[in-house]
Amino acid sequence: MKEQQPLGISFHERHIVHPGASVDLGKVDAGDKAGLKKNDQVEEEMDRLRAELDDLQERFYAWDKRSLLIVLQAMDTGGKDGTIEAVMHGVNPQGVNVTSFKTPTAEELAHDFLWRVHKAAPARRMIGIFNRSHYEDVLVVRVHNLVPEEVWRQRYDQINHFERLLTDCGTVILKFYLHISKDEQAKRLQERLDDPKKHWKFAAGDLKERELWDDYTAAYQEALARCSTEGAPWYVIPANHNWYRNLAVTSIIVEALKKLNPVYPPLDPSIGKIVIS
Amino acid sequence: MKEQQPLGISFHERHIVHPGASVDLGKVDAGDKAGLKKNDQVEEEMDRLRAELDDLQERFYAWDKRSLLIVLQAMDTGGKDGTIEAVMHGVNPQGVNVTSFKTPTAEELAHDFLWRVHKAAPARRMIGIFNRSHYEDVLVVRVHNLVPEEVWRQRYDQINHFERLLTDCGTVILKFYLHISKDEQAKRLQERLDDPKKHWKFAAGDLKERELWDDYTAAYQEALARCSTEGAPWYVIPANHNWYRNLAVTSIIVEALKKLNPVYPPLDPSIGKIVIS
Repeated sequence: MKEQQPLGISFHERHIVHPGASVDLGKVDAGDKAGLKKNDQVEEEMDRLRAELDDLQERFYAWDKRSLLIVLQAMDTGGKDGTIEAVMHGVNPQGVNVTSFKTPTAEELAHDFLWRVHKAAPARRMIGIFNRSHYEDVLVVRVHNLVPEEVWRQRYDQINHFERLLTDCGTVILKFYLHISKDEQAKRLQERLDDPKKHWKFAAGDLKERELWDDYTAAYQEALARCSTEGAPWYVIPANHNWYRNLAVTSIIVEALKKLNPVYPPLDPSIGKIVIS
Repeated sequence: MKEQQPLGISFHERHIVHPGASVDLGKVDAGDKAGLKKNDQVEEEMDRLRAELDDLQERFYAWDKRSLLIVLQAMDTGGKDGTIEAVMHGVNPQGVNVTSFKTPTAEELAHDFLWRVHKAAPARRMIGIFNRSHYEDVLVVRVHNLVPEEVWRQRYDQINHFERLLTDCGTVILKFYLHISKDEQAKRLQERLDDPKKHWKFAAGDLKERELWDDYTAAYQEALARCSTEGAPWYVIPANHNWYRNLAVTSIIVEALKKLNPVYPPLDPSIGKIVIS
């Protein structure tokens, strides 16, 4: 089956981090639009993709054979919430489970770092979305020295083994790093300060984190390079333009689901011809 | 604030089970349409309600003060799944959490019947939807004699106390019984047998349950009468017509959220005038 690419672009090919490749985020243009403009053609394609995702999710749910895990990571204001809303808008919420990982609780900290993550793994037939994830344990934890280096250093392998377990057992994993520029972040933080509808998203701590931009970039680069695998690839999605980010993410998810070819299961053959009375 | 009723109908008033009132489902027309027809005006109102729900949910999430729990119960084919899809279509999935209660596991059975339910209670700012619920413990459990009568008899009070705990602590609870006729169920089961896209929804056990229609009706009537309370009311929604069911349920949810008047919280006053650089 030939991949359908109405815009002539494979977002998968364009944005995947090939396993084993190194990552230099400074060389990825966060404002990249793959030569597209936000015009009617792009909006039509987005509508088509959303409808296709809606249909595929319904089949995937009925099929009941696999799980899909979508991991979203980004710098503050990178657009994790917006992506979930835009991409999953219209998909049956019964088949979708969003987990937002916050600062670990005392109970969570009393376990290994993957304990709470494993608990949130999507069940068969479900699409699980991680808004932040176990990757924070090699990002914020590394940048703020919350554990010694020899501890976080071994986590890349631990993460790969854990994700391998999930994919071996039937979960498809797609990981998206939403890549914005430092200037774009300034603009977005300012909006949160200026727009009363966005005040609730602003935390004073965001400014402190912003000062650590370069440290976060280094941590992301290593995580993306070391943990992009055949079964659980990372994608670096240019995310200065929301519409492009949504288009690329939706397209990659749709292509991954189409490859699985989920089908409506047949009637149990033991059930013969029945007329309900 | 005057309740907005563009169709001149308060679905809340029309379908609520008043606390203390008895319930005779035989006297509720499952095909009731409140005098409406599925015309343009009704479809426009449904679109308006969906948009309003989308907006209210966003405010509710940002507000971060309360939770909303929606309980859906029905006979097989009553439309629980369809209601979730139709009503929540377009609401940000990050703020919605659907829990489908299945046959309890061994671990769940080793606890009191509300243990697994309490675990699934929606966190602050979340809309939790229960597809089936603790009410199965006075429905299927009662009809099939899974526990002695003296055990399930005390559950009505236990349920009321449990729900009271949730409402005391900030959760708004709305419970919907989707009421279909026995003839309508026959039609819908037949569709599941005849339509390949619906085969996966058919289970041979459904026919056995159908034979127990009257026992289920009696069990529902008692649960609805004994557990409709001021803070956690039951609604009996005529559900032979999907469009009417969706309209009524959406309207009641929207009215309940509007009463809370969720607002976008202001900026932390300790954050002064800042310009991001």
